[in-house]
Amino acid sequence: MTDSSTDSAWKTAITEIAPNCVRVRGYDIAELMGNVSVGQTVYLILRGELPSEDVGRLMEAMLVASIDHGATPPSALAARTVASTGASLSASVAAGIASINEHHGGAIEQCARQLGHIVNQQTETGESLDRVAETVLEDLKSEGQRMAGFGHRTHTNDPRTNRLFELAEQAGVSGKHVEAARAVEHVFATAGKQLPINVDGAMGAILADLGFDPSVMNGLFMIARLPGLVAHVHEEKTRQNPMRRIDPVDHSYDGPAARSLPPSS
Amino acid sequence: MTDSSTDSAWKTAITEIAPNCVRVRGYDIAELMGNVSVGQTVYLILRGELPSEDVGRLMEAMLVASIDHGATPPSALAARTVASTGASLSASVAAGIASINEHHGGAIEQCARQLGHIVNQQTETGESLDRVAETVLEDLKSEGQRMAGFGHRTHTNDPRTNRLFELAEQAGVSGKHVEAARAVEHVFATAGKQLPINVDGAMGAILADLGFDPSVMNGLFMIARLPGLVAHVHEEKTRQNPMRRIDPVDHSYDGPAARSLPPSS
Amino acid sequence: MTDSSTDSAWKTAITEIAPNCVRVRGYDIAELMGNVSVGQTVYLILRGELPSEDVGRLMEAMLVASIDHGATPPSALAARTVASTGASLSASVAAGIASINEHHGGAIEQCARQLGHIVNQQTETGESLDRVAETVLEDLKSEGQRMAGFGHRTHTNDPRTNRLFELAEQAGVSGKHVEAARAVEHVFATAGKQLPINVDGAMGAILADLGFDPSVMNGLFMIARLPGLVAHVHEEKTRQNPMRRIDPVDHSYDGPAARSLPPSS
Amino acid sequence: MTDSSTDSAWKTAITEIAPNCVRVRGYDIAELMGNVSVGQTVYLILRGELPSEDVGRLMEAMLVASIDHGATPPSALAARTVASTGASLSASVAAGIASINEHHGGAIEQCARQLGHIVNQQTETGESLDRVAETVLEDLKSEGQRMAGFGHRTHTNDPRTNRLFELAEQAGVSGKHVEAARAVEHVFATAGKQLPINVDGAMGAILADLGFDPSVMNGLFMIARLPGLVAHVHEEKTRQNPMRRIDPVDHSYDGPAARSLPPSS
Repeated sequence: MTDSSTDSAWKTAITEIAPNCVRVRGYDIAELMGNVSVGQTVYLILRGELPSEDVGRLMEAMLVASIDHGATPPSALAARTVASTGASLSASVAAGIASINEHHGGAIEQCARQLGHIVNQQTETGESLDRVAETVLEDLKSEGQRMAGFGHRTHTNDPRTNRLFELAEQAGVSGKHVEAARAVEHVFATAGKQLPINVDGAMGAILADLGFDPSVMNGLFMIARLPGLVAHVHEEKTRQNPMRRIDPVDHSYDGPAARSLPPSS
Repeated sequence: MTDSSTDSAWKTAITEIAPNCVRVRGYDIAELMGNVSVGQTVYLILRGELPSEDVGRLMEAMLVASIDHGATPPSALAARTVASTGASLSASVAAGIASINEHHGGAIEQCARQLGHIVNQQTETGESLDRVAETVLEDLKSEGQRMAGFGHRTHTNDPRTNRLFELAEQAGVSGKHVEAARAVEHVFATAGKQLPINVDGAMGAILADLGFDPSVMNGLFMIARLPGLVAHVHEEKTRQNPMRRIDPVDHSYDGPAARSLPPSS
Repeated sequence: MTDSSTDSAWKTAITEIAPNCVRVRGYDIAELMGNVSVGQTVYLILRGELPSEDVGRLMEAMLVASIDHGATPPSALAARTVASTGASLSASVAAGIASINEHHGGAIEQCARQLGHIVNQQTETGESLDRVAETVLEDLKSEGQRMAGFGHRTHTNDPRTNRLFELAEQAGVSGKHVEAARAVEHVFATAGKQLPINVDGAMGAILADLGFDPSVMNGLFMIARLPGLVAHVHEEKTRQNPMRRIDPVDHSYDGPAARSLPPSS
Repeated sequence: MTDSSTDSAWKTAITEIAPNCVRVRGYDIAELMGNVSVGQTVYLILRGELPSEDVGRLMEAMLVASIDHGATPPSALAARTVASTGASLSASVAAGIASINEHHGGAIEQCARQLGHIVNQQTETGESLDRVAETVLEDLKSEGQRMAGFGHRTHTNDPRTNRLFELAEQAGVSGKHVEAARAVEHVFATAGKQLPINVDGAMGAILADLGFDPSVMNGLFMIARLPGLVAHVHEEKTRQNPMRRIDPVDHSYDGPAARSLPPSS
C-alpha cells in the first residue's frame, strides 16, 4: 500500500506495488520467476491461488493448444489488415484481440455454460447424464440454438482435444463437466451425428471443472492466441507490401516441413 | 497446404492447417502440448525454432516478470476506463494492448538497440566495453536523449532484474548485451548516478543475447502483460460500478497478504 | 460494378466505385460536395435517401450538440491515456471510439427503444400517453431498471435539449417519440422528480421520429464525438508529457473566454 | 472552471463544462447548433476559431469527399472483419479507425508536408515554383521516395479533386500550397507522366493553405470516414452471416442506381 492512498482510495486485489517488490495475489514475482510456470501464474492472477504443478502443466497445454490457427481466423486477418496500413505492432495486435468474441473463441465460454446447465439439471433431477444431455439438446434445438464446442469444419478428430482430456485426467481434475461433454458427444453419435467435442469444447469443459468463471474464459483464449497474433503482425510487416489485398482463403504455408520433437524431450 | 491454394496464393511460414493437424513452425501442436512449455512455444512461434528447456524456463521467467504492475500503468487504466463504459472483455483488453508503445514497454526494445550499438562499437573499435559505454552515453546526452532501461521511479534495486540475470546465466545465454548493460551500469555508478539496470533493461539485454529482433520485443511485453490486463478488466467489471471516475494514483491493494511459495516447490 | 466481380461476389449497397466516380447510395460524391451538407450526407449513407435541407440542419445540430463534453468522459480519458504512451493519433482515437457503449452514449439508443415501447403501447391500448408512460415507468421500476435519457448530474436544464426540440419542430419531424418523451417528463414532474429530458434523450426521441434504427444511434454519437476525440488526442500529444498520470476530475479549462456568435451569422 | 479544480489541476483549452452550459473554444454549443455548420464546428474545435461560412462549406465538402470509398479500403475490411466475430458497433468501428495511418489516409499529411517544403524552398531561393518543384521531385526520387497525393490506381481524373479546388477558390483560401500542387502536376506532365493531383493531394494542399497543422490532417480523414465505417459495420451485422470469409476484391454494389440531385437543391 502506497503512502499516497487515502480512505477514499479505490481497491484492487490483483497486485501490490511497493519499492523493490511486486506481489501478485500476495506472491513476490521475483520468487515466482523460475519456480512456477506461466500456466501456474496465469491461473494465480485470474483465480487468486497458485495451482499444483500438474494443473499448471494442464494450463500450459491449453495455452499452447490455441496459440495459432493460421492466417484464416478473423483475429489474424484483422491484425494483418490493420498492420498493412502502417499501424504499430500494438495497434495491429489490438485489432486482433478485439476480434475475439462470441463467434471467435466464444465457444469455450458458451460450451462451459451449456455443460454447466446439464450438470445442474442432472443434480436436480437425478437422471442419467445421457438422459439430461438429450433433453437439453432437444431444448436447444427447439429454441433454434445449437450446442457450442462440438464439430469442426476442418478437424473431424482433433488430436489436441484428446491430449487435453488426457492431461486433465493426469492432473486429477477431470470432473462433471468433462463427463457432461462426453454425454453430449454420445447423444450426438447415437443420433448418427458426427459431432465430436472440439478443442473449444474441451477447453470449456476442463476450465469449468477447474472452477473458472465462464465470463473469463474468452480471456484465456486471448492470452493463448496473443503470441500467434504477434507472429502474424511481425510477418506481415517484414514480408509483405503495405496496403496489399489480403485474401482470406487463398494462402499457403511455406515454413519448416513437418517435424517431431527430439526423443529426449 | 490446402487444396484451395493457387499459384497466386500468398505465403505464411507460421502455421500449417490440415485436417486433424495444426503445425506451428513444423511441429504438431498436439505433440507440443504437455511436452514443451509456454516459454518454449512462444520462442518457437516468434523465432522458428524450439529452444532448450533452460531457455524455455528463462522465457517463462520473463513472461512472469512482466505479468502485471498494478493499476497505475496506462495499459491497465485504459483497459479499465473502456471496461467501465460497458465494453466487452476483448474491446477493453484491446485498449490495454494499444497502450503498449514507445513510452510503455518500449524501453525493452530501445535498450536492446542501444546495447546493440555499444556491442557493435566495441567490436569495431576494440576498446573496452566501459570505454565504449562511456562514449555512447556522452553521445546520447549531447543529443538530448537518454539510455533506456536504467533507473526506476519506484524500484531502486529490483529483485526481478537479478533473478533474470541469474536465470540467463544458468541457461548459458548471458552474452555481449548483458555485459554491455553491466558496463553502462558501471559508468553510471562511477559518475555517482544511482541508475541500476531495471527489469525492462534486463529483458532488452537478455532478449538481444538470445537473438531476438528488437522490433518484436514489445510484442513479448504484450504477451507477458495480457493476463494482467484480463485480470484488471474482469475485476473492473465484477467489482466496480460503470462510469466511475478511475483515479490513476489514489487506489490501494486489498488482496491476499504477502506470502511465500511452499518449501517443496 | 467492377469487371473483377463474379457471381459469387458478396454484395454491398453503400458505395459504388468506378473509374473517376464514387457514388454513395447512387449519388456522385462530386455532385454532393458543396451542394448538400454533412448532416444530409450522414443521413444519406446511413438511411439510403437524401433528406430535406431542414432535416439536414437538424442532423447537423445533433452532430454539433455532442461534439465534445470536456476531459471527463471515459472516451476522452481513454484516448488521452493511450496517446500518453506514444500511440499514434489513430490508435488513440480508436480507444476513444471503443469507449462509446451502453453506459457512454448508449442512453440515446436505450431511450429511443423505451419511447418506442410507450408509443406502441399507446397505439395498442388507446390510453393517453401520460397514462401509458406512467405504467411503463412503474414496470421499469419494478424490474429494477430506469428510464434512459432523463436527468443529468451536471446539467439540470440543458439548453442543447431545447434547441434540438426547436429545430425538430422547424423541420416538421417532431412526432410520437418526442410526445412520449414529454409525457415521461410530465409524469416525473407530477411525482415531484426533477428529471428533465437530457440531450441524449432528446436525440433518441428525435432520431426515432426520423425513423432511425435504434441499433445505429450509437454510431451517430460516435460520428458526432470524433472531432472532440481528435482534438483531445492532439492536445495531449502537443501539450503534455508522455506517461503522465491523467486525473479524471482535477483539471480546468484555460481556453478562450466565453464569447458569442457575431450578430450577422 | 469547476469548483473542484485545484492549483495542480491540469489544463485543457478545448471545452468548458459548467452547469447548463457546454462551451467549445468559448462558444456555447447551444448557440452553435443550427447557426453554424458541422464544417465550421470541426474547424473551430481543431483550430480554436470559427471560420467564415464559405470556409465552413469547403470543410463540409472535404468531409463529404472522403465519407466512403466502398468495401475495399483496409479500414472498411478491418471494421467488417471485427464485426463478423460478434463485436459491438464501437469495437468494430474502432478497428476501422485504427487502420487510418501512413498508408491509408496518410497521403494527405505527407503531401501537405512535401508541398510545404516546396513553398519554403521557393521563398528561400526565389526561383519559380516549377523549378523548385522539379528539384524537390528529383531529390525525392534520388532518396527512393515518392511524392504523395498524385496519381490513383482507379481514378485518373477524379472530379472530387476539381470540385475541391473550385470550392477553395470560391472561399478565397486557395494559396501557395495549391499553387505548389499545380506546379508538381505540371512537372509530372512535362515529363510525360500522367500523375494528376488526387483527392488526398487536394485535401493536403487546401488544408495547408487553411493553416492546418499536418499532424492533425489524418484526424480530419478519420472524421470524414467515420459515417462510412458505421454504415459498413451496420450493413455487415444486418446483412451477412457471422464469421464469413470477407473477400477484399470480389464484391459488387447492389444499392440504388445512379441518380442526380433534384434541380432545386
